Amino acid sequence: MTRQQLFDKIKEKESFLCVGLDTDIKKIPAHLLSLEDPIFEFNKQIIDATQNYAVAYKPNTAFYEANGSKGWESLQKTLDYIPDDIFTIADAKRADIGNTSSMYARAFFENMNFDSVTVAPYMGSDSVKPFLEFNGKWVILLAATSNPGGLDFQNLLVGTDGEKLYEKVIRKSTEWGDSDNLMYVVGATRPEALADIRKIVPNHFLLIPGVGAQGGDLQSVCTHGMNNQCGLLVNSSRGIIYSDNTEQFGKTAGVQAQKVQREMAQILQLL
Amino acid sequence: MTRQQLFDKIKEKESFLCVGLDTDIKKIPAHLLSLEDPIFEFNKQIIDATQNYAVAYKPNTAFYEANGSKGWESLQKTLDYIPDDIFTIADAKRADIGNTSSMYARAFFENMNFDSVTVAPYMGSDSVKPFLEFNGKWVILLAATSNPGGLDFQNLLVGTDGEKLYEKVIRKSTEWGDSDNLMYVVGATRPEALADIRKIVPNHFLLIPGVGAQGGDLQSVCTHGMNNQCGLLVNSSRGIIYSDNTEQFGKTAGVQAQKVQREMAQILQLL
Repeated sequence: MTRQQLFDKIKEKESFLCVGLDTDIKKIPAHLLSLEDPIFEFNKQIIDATQNYAVAYKPNTAFYEANGSKGWESLQKTLDYIPDDIFTIADAKRADIGNTSSMYARAFFENMNFDSVTVAPYMGSDSVKPFLEFNGKWVILLAATSNPGGLDFQNLLVGTDGEKLYEKVIRKSTEWGDSDNLMYVVGATRPEALADIRKIVPNHFLLIPGVGAQGGDLQSVCTHGMNNQCGLLVNSSRGIIYSDNTEQFGKTAGVQAQKVQREMAQILQLL
Repeated sequence: MTRQQLFDKIKEKESFLCVGLDTDIKKIPAHLLSLEDPIFEFNKQIIDATQNYAVAYKPNTAFYEANGSKGWESLQKTLDYIPDDIFTIADAKRADIGNTSSMYARAFFENMNFDSVTVAPYMGSDSVKPFLEFNGKWVILLAATSNPGGLDFQNLLVGTDGEKLYEKVIRKSTEWGDSDNLMYVVGATRPEALADIRKIVPNHFLLIPGVGAQGGDLQSVCTHGMNNQCGLLVNSSRGIIYSDNTEQFGKTAGVQAQKVQREMAQILQLL
Protein backbone atom coordinates (compact mmCIF):
# COMPACT_ATOMS: atom_id res chain seq x y z
CA MET A 1 0.00 0.00 0.00
CA THR A 2 1.41 3.42 -0.96
CA ARG A 3 1.31 6.54 1.20
CA GLN A 4 -1.28 8.09 -1.10
CA GLN A 5 -3.47 4.97 -0.95
CA LEU A 6 -3.28 5.04 2.82
CA PHE A 7 -4.27 8.70 2.93
CA ASP A 8 -7.13 8.05 0.49
CA LYS A 9 -8.39 5.30 2.78
CA ILE A 10 -8.17 7.63 5.77
CA LYS A 11 -10.30 10.22 3.97
CA GLU A 12 -12.80 7.61 2.79
CA LYS A 13 -13.29 6.08 6.23
CA GLU A 14 -12.79 9.37 8.09
CA SER A 15 -10.53 7.44 10.41
CA PHE A 16 -6.85 6.95 11.18
CA LEU A 17 -7.54 4.25 13.73
CA CYS A 18 -5.32 1.18 13.99
CA VAL A 19 -6.77 -1.65 16.06
CA GLY A 20 -4.14 -3.57 17.99
CA LEU A 21 -4.78 -7.30 17.98
CA ASP A 22 -2.91 -8.09 21.20
CA THR A 23 -4.93 -11.20 21.73
CA ASP A 24 -4.12 -12.89 25.03
CA ILE A 25 -5.64 -16.33 25.54
CA LYS A 26 -5.97 -15.47 29.25
CA LYS A 27 -8.08 -12.37 28.56
CA ILE A 28 -10.55 -13.41 25.88
CA PRO A 29 -14.16 -14.37 26.71
CA ALA A 30 -14.42 -17.84 28.24
CA HIS A 31 -16.99 -19.13 25.75
CA LEU A 32 -14.34 -19.05 23.00
CA LEU A 33 -11.95 -21.36 24.78
CA SER A 34 -13.70 -24.55 23.69
CA LEU A 35 -13.26 -23.68 20.01
CA GLU A 36 -10.38 -25.09 17.99
CA ASP A 37 -8.56 -21.77 17.57
CA PRO A 38 -9.90 -19.33 20.20
CA ILE A 39 -7.36 -16.63 19.30
CA PHE A 40 -8.40 -16.56 15.67
CA GLU A 41 -12.13 -16.75 16.52
CA PHE A 42 -11.70 -13.75 18.80
CA ASN A 43 -9.80 -11.79 16.14
CA LYS A 44 -12.34 -12.72 13.47
CA GLN A 45 -15.20 -11.21 15.47
CA ILE A 46 -13.14 -8.14 16.36
CA ILE A 47 -12.27 -7.61 12.69
CA ASP A 48 -15.90 -8.13 11.60
CA ALA A 49 -17.09 -5.53 14.08
CA THR A 50 -14.37 -2.89 13.67
CA GLN A 51 -13.31 -3.00 10.01
CA ASN A 52 -15.56 -0.11 8.98
CA TYR A 53 -13.89 2.15 11.54
CA ALA A 54 -10.24 1.14 11.19
CA VAL A 55 -7.66 1.73 8.47
CA ALA A 56 -5.07 -0.59 10.00
CA TYR A 57 -4.72 -3.70 12.13
CA LYS A 58 -1.66 -4.38 14.23
CA PRO A 59 -1.24 -7.85 15.69
CA ASN A 60 1.62 -7.89 18.19
CA THR A 61 3.63 -11.07 17.55
CA ALA A 62 4.36 -11.66 21.25
CA PHE A 63 0.77 -12.68 21.90
CA TYR A 64 0.95 -15.31 19.15
CA GLU A 65 4.42 -16.63 19.92
CA ALA A 66 3.30 -17.28 23.47
CA ASN A 67 1.27 -20.14 21.97
CA GLY A 68 4.14 -21.56 19.91
CA SER A 69 3.57 -22.87 16.38
CA LYS A 70 -0.17 -22.95 16.96
CA GLY A 71 0.01 -19.23 17.72
CA TRP A 72 1.76 -18.61 14.42
CA GLU A 73 -1.06 -20.41 12.66
CA SER A 74 -3.54 -18.11 14.42
CA LEU A 75 -1.50 -15.12 13.29
CA GLN A 76 -1.42 -16.33 9.67
CA LYS A 77 -5.18 -16.97 9.68
CA THR A 78 -5.80 -13.55 11.20
CA LEU A 79 -3.70 -11.84 8.55
CA ASP A 80 -5.50 -13.75 5.79
CA TYR A 81 -8.85 -12.67 7.23
CA ILE A 82 -8.07 -8.94 7.25
CA PRO A 83 -9.59 -7.25 4.15
CA ASP A 84 -6.98 -6.41 1.50
CA ASP A 85 -7.65 -2.67 1.60
CA ILE A 86 -6.71 -2.41 5.28
CA PHE A 87 -3.07 -1.72 6.17
CA THR A 88 -1.45 -4.49 8.21
CA ILE A 89 1.34 -4.07 10.73
CA ALA A 90 3.36 -6.94 12.19
CA ASP A 91 4.25 -5.39 15.52
CA ALA A 92 7.33 -7.52 15.94
CA LYS A 93 10.07 -5.05 16.92
CA ARG A 94 12.67 -7.16 15.12
CA ALA A 95 16.21 -6.35 13.95
CA ASP A 96 19.45 -8.30 13.74
CA ILE A 97 22.68 -8.30 11.73
CA GLY A 98 22.12 -7.83 8.00
CA ASN A 99 21.74 -11.41 6.76
CA THR A 100 19.49 -12.23 9.71
CA SER A 101 17.28 -9.16 9.29
CA SER A 102 16.79 -10.39 5.73
CA MET A 103 15.34 -13.59 7.18
CA TYR A 104 12.94 -11.58 9.36
CA ALA A 105 11.92 -9.56 6.32
CA ARG A 106 11.25 -12.81 4.47
CA ALA A 107 9.18 -14.03 7.43
CA PHE A 108 6.88 -11.01 7.52
CA PHE A 109 6.83 -9.86 3.89
CA GLU A 110 7.09 -13.17 2.00
CA ASN A 111 6.08 -16.10 4.19
CA MET A 112 3.37 -13.84 5.56
CA ASN A 113 2.19 -10.90 3.53
CA PHE A 114 2.19 -8.01 6.00
CA ASP A 115 2.33 -4.45 4.66
CA SER A 116 4.73 -3.37 7.37
CA VAL A 117 6.79 -4.48 10.33
CA THR A 118 7.99 -2.59 13.39
CA VAL A 119 11.78 -2.57 13.70
CA ALA A 120 14.09 -1.74 16.62
CA PRO A 121 16.93 0.68 15.82
CA TYR A 122 19.65 -0.28 18.34
CA MET A 123 21.68 -2.36 15.85
CA GLY A 124 21.77 0.40 13.23
CA SER A 125 21.80 0.62 9.45
CA ASP A 126 22.41 -2.94 8.26
CA SER A 127 19.79 -4.25 10.69
CA VAL A 128 17.10 -1.98 9.21
CA LYS A 129 17.94 -1.75 5.50
CA PRO A 130 17.05 -5.36 4.55
CA PHE A 131 13.42 -4.61 5.44
CA LEU A 132 13.46 -1.58 3.16
CA GLU A 133 14.41 -3.63 0.11
CA PHE A 134 10.88 -4.96 -0.34
CA ASN A 135 8.84 -3.00 -2.84
CA GLY A 136 5.58 -1.64 -1.47
CA LYS A 137 6.46 -2.67 2.10
CA TRP A 138 7.08 -0.45 5.10
CA VAL A 139 9.43 -0.27 8.05
CA ILE A 140 7.97 1.31 11.17
CA LEU A 141 11.01 2.21 13.24
CA LEU A 142 10.87 2.55 17.02
CA ALA A 143 11.68 6.15 17.93
CA ALA A 144 10.09 7.43 21.17
CA THR A 145 8.13 4.56 22.67
CA SER A 146 5.12 4.91 24.96
CA ASN A 147 6.37 2.88 27.92
CA PRO A 148 7.99 4.35 31.06
CA GLY A 149 11.31 2.62 30.28
CA GLY A 150 11.37 4.44 26.96
CA LEU A 151 12.91 7.34 28.85
CA ASP A 152 15.89 5.27 30.06
CA PHE A 153 17.86 5.61 26.82
CA GLN A 154 15.76 7.32 24.14
CA ASN A 155 15.85 10.73 25.82
CA LEU A 156 19.58 10.73 26.48
CA LEU A 157 21.41 13.62 24.88
CA VAL A 158 23.86 12.27 22.31
CA GLY A 159 26.79 13.89 20.58
CA THR A 160 27.51 17.56 21.02
CA ASP A 161 24.53 19.34 19.49
CA GLY A 162 21.93 18.68 22.17
CA GLU A 163 20.08 16.04 20.20
CA LYS A 164 18.22 13.24 21.94
CA LEU A 165 18.83 9.62 20.98
CA TYR A 166 15.37 9.21 19.43
CA GLU A 167 15.94 12.34 17.31
CA LYS A 168 19.32 10.98 16.23
CA VAL A 169 17.67 7.65 15.32
CA ILE A 170 15.11 9.41 13.15
CA ARG A 171 17.59 11.75 11.50
CA LYS A 172 20.02 8.90 10.74
CA SER A 173 17.26 6.66 9.39
CA THR A 174 16.25 9.24 6.78
CA GLU A 175 19.49 8.18 5.04
CA TRP A 176 18.06 4.66 4.68
CA GLY A 177 14.49 5.28 3.55
CA ASP A 178 11.95 8.03 3.00
CA SER A 179 8.33 8.92 3.69
CA ASP A 180 7.23 6.30 1.17
CA ASN A 181 8.67 3.29 3.00
CA LEU A 182 9.47 4.45 6.52
CA MET A 183 7.26 5.39 9.48
CA TYR A 184 8.10 5.90 13.16
CA VAL A 185 6.65 4.71 16.45
CA VAL A 186 6.01 7.62 18.79
CA GLY A 187 4.11 7.05 22.01
CA ALA A 188 0.96 9.07 22.65
CA THR A 189 2.27 9.45 26.17
CA ARG A 190 5.01 11.76 24.82
CA PRO A 191 3.33 14.66 22.98
CA GLU A 192 6.40 16.88 23.51
CA ALA A 193 8.43 14.39 21.47
CA LEU A 194 5.85 14.54 18.68
CA ALA A 195 6.41 18.23 18.08
CA ASP A 196 10.20 17.77 17.97
CA ILE A 197 9.87 14.82 15.63
CA ARG A 198 7.67 16.76 13.19
CA LYS A 199 10.52 19.22 12.76
CA ILE A 200 12.74 16.37 11.49
CA VAL A 201 10.22 14.37 9.47
CA PRO A 202 7.28 16.61 8.53
CA ASN A 203 5.90 14.22 5.90
CA HIS A 204 6.35 10.74 7.37
CA PHE A 205 3.53 8.76 8.87
CA LEU A 206 3.82 8.13 12.60
CA LEU A 207 2.36 5.12 14.38
CA ILE A 208 1.07 6.25 17.74
CA PRO A 209 0.42 3.65 20.43
CA GLY A 210 -0.50 4.49 23.99
CA VAL A 211 -3.89 6.17 23.56
CA GLY A 212 -6.33 4.67 26.04
CA ALA A 213 -5.03 2.08 28.52
CA GLN A 214 -1.57 3.68 28.60
CA GLY A 215 -2.94 7.17 29.22
CA GLY A 216 -2.27 9.06 25.98
CA ASP A 217 -4.73 11.67 24.70
CA LEU A 218 -5.96 11.76 21.08
CA GLN A 219 -6.50 15.52 20.84
CA SER A 220 -3.05 16.28 22.16
CA VAL A 221 -1.49 13.76 19.75
CA CYS A 222 -3.22 15.39 16.78
CA THR A 223 -2.32 18.92 17.85
CA HIS A 224 1.37 18.05 17.92
CA GLY A 225 1.68 15.30 15.33
CA MET A 226 -0.76 15.72 12.46
CA ASN A 227 0.36 16.92 9.05
CA ASN A 228 -1.61 17.92 5.95
CA GLN A 229 -1.94 14.30 4.85
CA CYS A 230 -2.97 13.23 8.34
CA GLY A 231 0.39 11.52 8.90
CA LEU A 232 -0.88 9.56 11.88
CA LEU A 233 -2.01 6.04 12.58
CA VAL A 234 -3.31 5.99 16.14
CA ASN A 235 -3.43 2.58 17.71
CA SER A 236 -5.81 1.35 20.36
CA SER A 237 -5.61 -2.21 21.60
CA ARG A 238 -6.94 -2.95 25.06
CA GLY A 239 -9.44 -0.07 25.04
CA ILE A 240 -11.23 -1.63 22.08
CA ILE A 241 -10.70 -5.39 22.09
CA TYR A 242 -11.15 -6.01 25.82
CA SER A 243 -14.01 -3.62 26.51
CA ASP A 244 -16.49 -6.48 27.07
CA ASN A 245 -15.95 -10.03 28.28
CA THR A 246 -19.35 -11.47 27.32
CA GLU A 247 -20.56 -13.12 24.11
CA GLN A 248 -21.31 -9.57 22.91
CA PHE A 249 -17.60 -8.61 22.94
CA GLY A 250 -17.45 -8.11 19.18
CA LYS A 251 -20.38 -5.74 19.13
CA THR A 252 -18.98 -3.76 22.05
CA ALA A 253 -15.57 -3.53 20.36
CA GLY A 254 -17.37 -2.13 17.29
CA VAL A 255 -19.08 0.49 19.43
CA GLN A 256 -15.77 1.49 21.01
CA ALA A 257 -14.02 1.67 17.64
CA GLN A 258 -16.84 3.77 16.21
CA LYS A 259 -16.57 6.15 19.14
CA VAL A 260 -12.88 6.73 18.38
CA GLN A 261 -13.61 6.99 14.64
CA ARG A 262 -16.18 9.74 15.24
CA GLU A 263 -13.71 11.75 17.24
CA MET A 264 -11.18 11.25 14.43
CA ALA A 265 -13.70 12.31 11.77
CA GLN A 266 -14.16 15.64 13.56
CA ILE A 267 -10.41 16.17 13.75
CA LEU A 268 -9.95 15.30 10.06
CA GLN A 269 -12.48 17.96 9.06
CA LEU A 270 -9.99 20.55 10.24
CA LEU A 271 -7.32 19.36 7.75
CA MET B 1 21.27 -23.41 34.65
CA THR B 2 23.22 -21.39 37.23
CA ARG B 3 26.41 -19.46 36.56
CA GLN B 4 28.39 -22.01 38.56
CA GLN B 5 26.88 -24.92 36.63
CA LEU B 6 27.78 -23.20 33.38
CA PHE B 7 31.37 -22.68 34.53
CA ASP B 8 31.58 -26.31 35.70
CA LYS B 9 30.47 -27.45 32.27
CA ILE B 10 33.06 -25.19 30.62
CA LYS B 11 35.80 -26.79 32.73
CA GLU B 12 34.53 -30.31 32.07
CA LYS B 13 34.34 -29.87 28.31
CA GLU B 14 37.33 -27.49 28.12
CA SER B 15 35.17 -25.36 25.86
CA PHE B 16 33.20 -22.16 25.91
CA LEU B 17 31.89 -22.67 22.40
CA CYS B 18 28.32 -21.81 21.49
CA VAL B 19 27.15 -23.21 18.17
CA GLY B 20 24.74 -20.91 16.35
CA LEU B 21 21.91 -22.81 14.68
CA ASP B 22 21.15 -20.21 11.99
CA THR B 23 19.65 -22.82 9.75
CA ASP B 24 18.67 -21.41 6.37
CA ILE B 25 16.65 -23.74 4.16
CA LYS B 26 18.46 -22.21 1.18
CA LYS B 27 21.90 -23.14 2.50
CA ILE B 28 21.56 -26.66 3.82
CA PRO B 29 22.69 -29.71 1.79
CA ALA B 30 20.29 -30.56 -1.01
CA HIS B 31 19.82 -34.20 0.01
CA LEU B 32 17.93 -33.06 3.13
CA LEU B 33 15.27 -31.16 1.23
CA SER B 34 13.18 -34.24 0.45
CA LEU B 35 12.78 -35.03 4.15
CA GLU B 36 9.70 -33.95 6.07
CA ASP B 37 11.50 -31.39 8.23
CA PRO B 38 14.84 -30.56 6.58
CA ILE B 39 15.67 -27.81 9.09
CA PHE B 40 15.32 -30.14 12.04
CA GLU B 41 17.17 -32.99 10.30
CA PHE B 42 20.06 -30.62 9.63
CA ASN B 43 20.12 -29.39 13.23
CA LYS B 44 19.90 -32.94 14.56
CA GLN B 45 23.02 -33.99 12.71
CA ILE B 46 24.85 -30.80 13.67
CA ILE B 47 23.96 -31.36 17.33
CA ASP B 48 24.99 -35.04 17.19
CA ALA B 49 28.36 -34.08 15.75
CA THR B 50 29.17 -31.02 17.86
CA GLN B 51 27.66 -31.64 21.30
CA ASN B 52 30.92 -32.90 22.82
CA TYR B 53 32.64 -29.66 21.90
CA ALA B 54 29.95 -27.09 22.71
CA VAL B 55 28.52 -25.80 25.99
CA ALA B 56 25.69 -23.84 24.35
CA TYR B 57 23.45 -23.82 21.30
CA LYS B 58 21.94 -20.65 19.94
CA PRO B 59 19.18 -20.95 17.34
CA ASN B 60 18.39 -17.56 15.85
CA THR B 61 14.61 -17.28 15.62
CA ALA B 62 14.68 -15.36 12.31
CA PHE B 63 15.71 -18.50 10.43
CA TYR B 64 12.73 -20.41 11.83
CA GLU B 65 10.14 -17.64 11.48
CA ALA B 66 11.03 -17.38 7.81
CA ASN B 67 9.23 -20.74 7.49
CA GLY B 68 6.13 -19.68 9.43
CA SER B 69 4.41 -22.04 11.88
CA LYS B 70 6.30 -25.00 10.40
CA GLY B 71 9.52 -23.19 11.27
CA TRP B 72 8.39 -22.83 14.87
CA GLU B 73 7.80 -26.56 14.98
CA SER B 74 11.36 -27.11 13.74
CA LEU B 75 12.60 -24.77 16.45
CA GLN B 76 10.65 -26.60 19.17
CA LYS B 77 11.92 -30.00 17.96
CA THR B 78 15.48 -28.66 17.85
CA LEU B 79 15.24 -27.35 21.40
CA ASP B 80 13.82 -30.67 22.61
CA TYR B 81 16.69 -32.51 20.94
CA ILE B 82 19.47 -30.50 22.63
CA PRO B 83 20.84 -32.43 25.65
CA ASP B 84 19.63 -31.01 28.99
CA ASP B 85 23.11 -30.17 30.24
CA ILE B 86 23.79 -27.79 27.35
CA PHE B 87 22.85 -24.12 27.76
CA THR B 88 20.24 -22.94 25.25
CA ILE B 89 19.89 -19.42 23.88
CA ALA B 90 16.87 -18.17 21.95
CA ASP B 91 18.57 -15.52 19.86
CA ALA B 92 15.39 -13.53 19.39
CA LYS B 93 16.40 -9.94 20.23
CA ARG B 94 12.94 -9.25 21.61
CA ALA B 95 11.60 -6.46 23.86
CA ASP B 96 8.36 -4.51 24.06
CA ILE B 97 6.30 -2.62 26.62
CA GLY B 98 6.02 -4.43 29.96
CA ASN B 99 2.90 -6.54 29.49
CA THR B 100 4.04 -7.53 26.00
CA SER B 101 7.56 -8.45 27.07
CA SER B 102 5.88 -10.74 29.60
CA MET B 103 4.26 -12.54 26.67
CA TYR B 104 7.63 -12.95 24.97
CA ALA B 105 9.06 -14.31 28.20
CA ARG B 106 6.19 -16.79 28.32
CA ALA B 107 6.91 -17.76 24.71
CA PHE B 108 10.57 -18.58 25.28
CA PHE B 109 10.65 -19.68 28.93
CA GLU B 110 7.28 -21.42 29.32
CA ASN B 111 5.86 -22.43 25.94
CA MET B 112 9.41 -23.35 24.99
CA ASN B 113 11.95 -24.09 27.68
CA PHE B 114 14.99 -22.05 26.67
CA ASP B 115 17.57 -21.19 29.34
CA SER B 116 17.99 -17.69 27.99
CA VAL B 117 16.82 -15.16 25.45
CA THR B 118 18.59 -12.24 23.81
CA VAL B 119 16.86 -8.91 24.50
CA ALA B 120 17.17 -5.49 22.82
CA PRO B 121 17.64 -2.54 25.22
CA TYR B 122 16.15 0.40 23.30
CA MET B 123 12.80 0.36 25.15
CA GLY B 124 14.41 0.37 28.60
CA SER B 125 13.64 -1.06 32.02
CA ASP B 126 10.07 -2.32 31.77
CA SER B 127 10.84 -4.00 28.45
CA VAL B 128 13.66 -6.05 30.00
CA LYS B 129 12.53 -6.75 33.57
CA PRO B 130 9.69 -9.18 32.71
CA PHE B 131 12.28 -11.62 31.33
CA LEU B 132 14.24 -11.41 34.59
CA GLU B 133 11.31 -12.59 36.68
CA PHE B 134 11.76 -16.21 35.64
CA ASN B 135 13.76 -18.23 38.12
CA GLY B 136 16.81 -19.92 36.66
CA LYS B 137 16.44 -18.12 33.33
CA TRP B 138 18.76 -15.57 31.75
CA VAL B 139 18.50 -12.35 29.80
CA ILE B 140 21.32 -11.74 27.32
CA LEU B 141 21.12 -8.02 26.63
CA LEU B 142 22.43 -6.48 23.41
CA ALA B 143 25.29 -4.14 24.27
CA ALA B 144 27.94 -3.69 21.55
CA THR B 145 26.86 -5.77 18.58
CA SER B 146 29.17 -7.24 15.95
CA ASN B 147 27.61 -5.73 12.83
CA PRO B 148 28.84 -2.57 11.06
CA GLY B 149 25.59 -0.72 11.89
CA GLY B 150 26.26 -1.35 15.56
CA LEU B 151 28.43 1.75 15.46
CA ASP B 152 25.56 4.01 14.30
CA PHE B 153 24.08 4.46 17.77
CA GLN B 154 25.87 2.22 20.29
CA ASN B 155 29.10 4.20 20.22
CA LEU B 156 27.47 7.63 20.58
CA LEU B 157 28.61 9.55 23.62
CA VAL B 158 25.65 10.08 25.93
CA GLY B 159 25.17 12.45 28.84
CA THR B 160 28.01 14.55 30.14
CA ASP B 161 30.57 12.06 31.44
CA GLY B 162 31.92 10.70 28.17
CA GLU B 163 30.11 7.41 28.39
CA LYS B 164 29.09 5.54 25.24
CA LEU B 165 25.53 4.35 24.77
CA TYR B 166 26.46 0.67 25.11
CA GLU B 167 28.27 1.44 28.37
CA LYS B 168 25.24 3.33 29.63
CA VAL B 169 23.01 0.39 28.67
CA ILE B 170 25.18 -2.01 30.64
CA ARG B 171 25.53 0.25 33.67
CA LYS B 172 21.79 0.95 33.80
CA SER B 173 20.90 -2.72 33.38
CA THR B 174 22.89 -3.68 36.46
CA GLU B 175 20.01 -2.05 38.37
CA TRP B 176 17.65 -4.67 36.91
CA GLY B 177 19.60 -7.90 37.27
CA ASP B 178 23.01 -9.27 38.24
CA SER B 179 25.66 -11.70 37.08
CA ASP B 180 23.37 -14.61 37.96
CA ASN B 181 20.61 -13.74 35.50
CA LEU B 182 22.06 -11.22 33.07
CA MET B 183 24.66 -11.55 30.30
CA TYR B 184 25.61 -9.16 27.48
CA VAL B 185 26.12 -9.48 23.74
CA VAL B 186 29.47 -8.02 22.71
CA GLY B 187 30.70 -8.53 19.16
CA ALA B 188 34.07 -10.18 18.62
CA THR B 189 34.64 -7.51 16.01
CA ARG B 190 34.92 -4.92 18.81
CA PRO B 191 37.72 -6.03 21.16
CA GLU B 192 38.24 -2.43 22.37
CA ALA B 193 34.66 -2.45 23.67
CA LEU B 194 35.33 -5.70 25.55
CA ALA B 195 38.00 -4.14 27.72
CA ASP B 196 35.78 -1.16 28.57
CA ILE B 197 32.88 -3.46 29.36
CA ARG B 198 34.93 -5.61 31.73
CA LYS B 199 35.52 -2.48 33.83
CA ILE B 200 31.76 -2.15 34.35
CA VAL B 201 30.78 -5.82 34.66
CA PRO B 202 33.84 -7.87 35.67
CA ASN B 203 31.83 -10.95 36.67
CA HIS B 204 29.07 -11.23 34.08
CA PHE B 205 29.13 -13.71 31.26
CA LEU B 206 29.41 -12.18 27.80
CA LEU B 207 28.02 -13.78 24.66
CA ILE B 208 30.44 -13.10 21.82
CA PRO B 209 29.23 -13.48 18.25
CA GLY B 210 31.26 -12.50 15.23
CA VAL B 211 34.20 -14.94 15.44
CA GLY B 212 34.76 -16.52 12.03
CA ALA B 213 32.54 -15.36 9.14
CA GLN B 214 32.24 -11.84 10.58
CA GLY B 215 36.00 -11.49 11.10
CA GLY B 216 36.46 -11.54 14.89
CA ASP B 217 39.52 -13.19 16.46
CA LEU B 218 39.28 -15.66 19.37
CA GLN B 219 42.64 -14.84 20.98
CA SER B 220 41.93 -11.14 20.98
CA VAL B 221 38.47 -11.70 22.47
CA CYS B 222 39.93 -13.77 25.31
CA THR B 223 42.73 -11.33 26.02
CA HIS B 224 40.25 -8.49 26.53
CA GLY B 225 37.14 -10.27 27.77
CA MET B 226 37.95 -13.35 29.83
CA ASN B 227 37.55 -13.34 33.62
CA ASN B 228 38.57 -15.90 36.26
CA GLN B 229 35.41 -17.93 35.68
CA CYS B 230 35.89 -17.76 31.92
CA GLY B 231 32.98 -15.33 31.57
CA LEU B 232 32.68 -15.92 27.85
CA LEU B 233 30.44 -17.85 25.51
CA VAL B 234 31.92 -17.51 22.05
CA ASN B 235 29.51 -18.21 19.23
CA SER B 236 30.28 -19.60 15.82
CA SER B 237 27.49 -20.20 13.33
CA ARG B 238 28.38 -20.18 9.65
CA GLY B 239 31.99 -21.24 10.24
CA ILE B 240 30.81 -24.52 11.75
CA ILE B 241 27.42 -25.43 10.34
CA TYR B 242 28.03 -24.52 6.69
CA SER B 243 31.59 -25.80 6.35
CA ASP B 244 30.52 -28.67 4.09
CA ASN B 245 27.60 -29.01 1.74
CA THR B 246 27.77 -32.78 1.16
CA GLU B 247 26.17 -35.69 3.00
CA GLN B 248 29.20 -35.52 5.31
CA PHE B 249 28.23 -32.06 6.58
CA GLY B 250 27.65 -33.27 10.15
CA LYS B 251 31.04 -34.91 10.42
CA THR B 252 32.75 -31.82 8.99
CA ALA B 253 30.89 -29.55 11.42
CA GLY B 254 32.14 -31.78 14.23
CA VAL B 255 35.71 -31.44 13.00
CA GLN B 256 35.36 -27.65 12.82
CA ALA B 257 33.83 -27.48 16.30
CA GLN B 258 36.59 -29.67 17.71
CA LYS B 259 39.19 -27.40 16.16
CA VAL B 260 37.72 -24.39 17.98
CA GLN B 261 37.34 -26.42 21.18
CA ARG B 262 41.04 -27.36 21.15
CA GLU B 263 42.03 -23.73 20.82
CA MET B 264 39.70 -22.92 23.72
CA ALA B 265 41.16 -25.73 25.85
CA GLN B 266 44.60 -24.19 25.52
CA ILE B 267 43.30 -20.77 26.50
CA LEU B 268 41.43 -22.18 29.50
CA GLN B 269 44.62 -23.76 30.84
CA LEU B 270 45.89 -20.24 31.48
CA LEU B 271 42.99 -19.44 33.83
